[in-house]
Amino acid sequence: MRQYDALATHFDEIASFSHAISLLGWDWSVMMPSGGAEARSTTQAHLKTYLHRLKTQPDLLERIDKAASEDLNEMERANLNLMRDSAVSARAIPEELVQALSKQSSKAEHAWRSLRKENNWRDFAPLLGDVIRLTRDKAEALATATNRTPYNALLHQYEPGLSCADIDPIFDDLSGFLPTFIDAALDKQKARKPQLPEGPFAQAKQETMGREIMRQMGFNFDHGRLDTSTHPFCGGVAADTRMTTRYNDDEWFLALLGIIHETGHGLYQQNLPMPWQRQPAGQARGMAVHESQSLLFEMQVARGRAFNQYLAPIARKTFGIEANQPAWQPENLYHIASKVERGFIRVDADECTYPCHVMLRYGIEKDFIAGKLDVHDLPERWDADMQRLLGISTLGNDKNGCMQDIHWPYGMMGYFPTYTLGALMAAQLMAAVRTQHPDIDTHIANGNLVPITDFMRQHIWQHGSRHSMQELVKMATGKPLDATAFKHHLQQRYIEEMV
Amino acid sequence: MRQYDALATHFDEIASFSHAISLLGWDWSVMMPSGGAEARSTTQAHLKTYLHRLKTQPDLLERIDKAASEDLNEMERANLNLMRDSAVSARAIPEELVQALSKQSSKAEHAWRSLRKENNWRDFAPLLGDVIRLTRDKAEALATATNRTPYNALLHQYEPGLSCADIDPIFDDLSGFLPTFIDAALDKQKARKPQLPEGPFAQAKQETMGREIMRQMGFNFDHGRLDTSTHPFCGGVAADTRMTTRYNDDEWFLALLGIIHETGHGLYQQNLPMPWQRQPAGQARGMAVHESQSLLFEMQVARGRAFNQYLAPIARKTFGIEANQPAWQPENLYHIASKVERGFIRVDADECTYPCHVMLRYGIEKDFIAGKLDVHDLPERWDADMQRLLGISTLGNDKNGCMQDIHWPYGMMGYFPTYTLGALMAAQLMAAVRTQHPDIDTHIANGNLVPITDFMRQHIWQHGSRHSMQELVKMATGKPLDATAFKHHLQQRYIEEMV
Repeated sequence: MRQYDALATHFDEIASFSHAISLLGWDWSVMMPSGGAEARSTTQAHLKTYLHRLKTQPDLLERIDKAASEDLNEMERANLNLMRDSAVSARAIPEELVQALSKQSSKAEHAWRSLRKENNWRDFAPLLGDVIRLTRDKAEALATATNRTPYNALLHQYEPGLSCADIDPIFDDLSGFLPTFIDAALDKQKARKPQLPEGPFAQAKQETMGREIMRQMGFNFDHGRLDTSTHPFCGGVAADTRMTTRYNDDEWFLALLGIIHETGHGLYQQNLPMPWQRQPAGQARGMAVHESQSLLFEMQVARGRAFNQYLAPIARKTFGIEANQPAWQPENLYHIASKVERGFIRVDADECTYPCHVMLRYGIEKDFIAGKLDVHDLPERWDADMQRLLGISTLGNDKNGCMQDIHWPYGMMGYFPTYTLGALMAAQLMAAVRTQHPDIDTHIANGNLVPITDFMRQHIWQHGSRHSMQELVKMATGKPLDATAFKHHLQQRYIEEMV
Repeated sequence: MRQYDALATHFDEIASFSHAISLLGWDWSVMMPSGGAEARSTTQAHLKTYLHRLKTQPDLLERIDKAASEDLNEMERANLNLMRDSAVSARAIPEELVQALSKQSSKAEHAWRSLRKENNWRDFAPLLGDVIRLTRDKAEALATATNRTPYNALLHQYEPGLSCADIDPIFDDLSGFLPTFIDAALDKQKARKPQLPEGPFAQAKQETMGREIMRQMGFNFDHGRLDTSTHPFCGGVAADTRMTTRYNDDEWFLALLGIIHETGHGLYQQNLPMPWQRQPAGQARGMAVHESQSLLFEMQVARGRAFNQYLAPIARKTFGIEANQPAWQPENLYHIASKVERGFIRVDADECTYPCHVMLRYGIEKDFIAGKLDVHDLPERWDADMQRLLGISTLGNDKNGCMQDIHWPYGMMGYFPTYTLGALMAAQLMAAVRTQHPDIDTHIANGNLVPITDFMRQHIWQHGSRHSMQELVKMATGKPLDATAFKHHLQQRYIEEMV
């Protein structure tokens, strides 16, 4: 037996424990009664500890090096490289640092839940400061092990291979373009007065419609579920994909867009290469690629003019609305879905302003990790960047400013850029679909998404983690990732009002 | 640190993996989409392998022996003995035998699903024969390790400490009593013509009523859930108890009795001693004790005259039935719930005939394990015992005879007796409650089950696995387990028609 095959067996076991941990996480959010939390925490910690032990087995790197000289096909070689990356990353961070980060981030996250509501920056700052300091230590440990800069080492965790050299020129382009563009888009929309459909909307009906749209998108319910949770997510594995959403009795459209967004993640996961489902190469590429799939379906497709022609009669039928009701016309739904607004909150932002929220955080993260920014100066820095990028001030409004996200107290730095890279990649992929299918909007208006899913299956989904994000983008679209397609898309939707 | 404390830490980890496996099992039956089975099997097998490795750590028995000379309180000492029992049992069966048994039982169980329907004993016999042979090997391995007879070693798996010496005199008593008693009970019921309430009964209403009764029984939904599955069960852990049931649109009463049965299991689990929840001593005693709790609430309480006085108006209200409808009167419900019938199928049997089904299987199992019975002679033996105990023949009707249960193809021998011992223990516990609360039927008729749950909490639930079943029965009722209370109960319900 090749050493490679023994390693594949070892990573098969790793896949089992990841799978179990993912399911227990799903159960925690979706099913677990509140009183089960304490016992469950201990159980999950034990599983995670054992998973970490599997990933850091003492002779693992040595065995990977041996296997490198064996006769491997291309996919096996890619898989071996991913095994090495996993082993190097897992061993890079000293156990005490993992523990300290886990402890301080739990503390900061827990405090955040109440301090944010109270707008209490003063008590939150030292807690956040501790997490940032430990995250910097972690970044430095990862940097040494992976031969990257500290911030690039953090990026690599979430989108392997991604670096500031990829991001900086793109974000420079966007930060030059967006502030003026947002002015123009807002001006264009001044005359629009979209009407909100009036509820209440029974949850059961919303769910039935959501499942119909999911099926239409190609989600396979023999290999997945849709449930509800406070924070929607997509978990599980390729063969058993666990999607969640949340409903609001007064509003069905945002909930449906949420389902469509998660279904983008779900389709990616369900269509990963099955023979590799229990190996590193069979997993989804990083978070930027994942987000490109959810945003492709949510932003490029579902918030567009064509899709709302398909959706409006389905929605009217679902809720028993007469055909001539103005709020339920395709054009009105399209106006709701594409409304631009300068706001404080990232998660509520539209696709034009969203990158500003991300670029602000990206600049700050980099400075934190480089030791150039003190946590006590964060509110001022936040305010200055918000003024520059979106023209609004957050002074004295920290709960809607630098305290709004869970990422930093949770110890996640290097994650934010993936949201916007995903949006850009979605635009670039959709442009490639348009080139291949100039009549794609007619298909979408008829509810036929097969040309899109076929394209994604061929160019993204079936490749698992075999290629880097940049390679995937180049192979799928003929060009490296940049902001051209995204800017063109914004122009087409918000100025030309074509898509 | 004492060696004992290090062992407690080790068993805490064991508890985590048992917990995870239990939850994945629940998810499999309740939540998993069909396409998830293959990936999940692999994942669960990996978790089980690791759990087995934890239980069979090479120096475990040595460490347990060292801890035995340390200063331990009574509960710690009991816990240490249970640790030893776990370690001895886990090491007793050679790995190859575990694998072979797992493989052959999967094969037999899988074939059973179709062969039973086809009444195809000829093709099933050799598959069952393989499992029986391997189960005998397992019994012998366990016997050597635990210093028991082979069949007692199997019993010990399901109800620790139980042996044929406990069972035989009780079953001799019952097999002398029941055949004549069943005649008398049937004669007594000849004039009864219970009317079945006519459906359909919306599942949502059945579920609402089920939850109301569960709450009335004391089930804590902050520490548990009720869901649906093909085969009802109670899984999870004390802090997070996962009960399931199934509904039938045409029939609400049996489904409700099923919920009450599982709630008996659930109450036991939820009320185990919390500080010991992650140690062997904090787990439920064996299956006989568990079944005593489910049968106490189902058979002793819910199928009795008093409970149906409480239930009838609740059921009528649930389904919007007028007060004077004959089928919905307490007495009619009581007649449905206490109907005696000689039948082929164990799981459909009433409490009078059920022990006959169990005693038949017990005798056959013992002979299989002793090598006194060849699998090819099973149909004849089954028929002879059915004729003797219940006066009905299964010749040529193997699907309703020796092919009806999943236990043997699954490799479970030594389990069947626990059903009837549980029924006897339930009767003996209920008799003790009656002595303490002569007015218990008035309480039950008012829906007040607190005197019963208080008794069970004090005498059974809070003790975890600290005492053997026999010790528990003696401590709770002042006498060792026998059939006296059960026979008295049958007499009172089926001849005197008092309870």
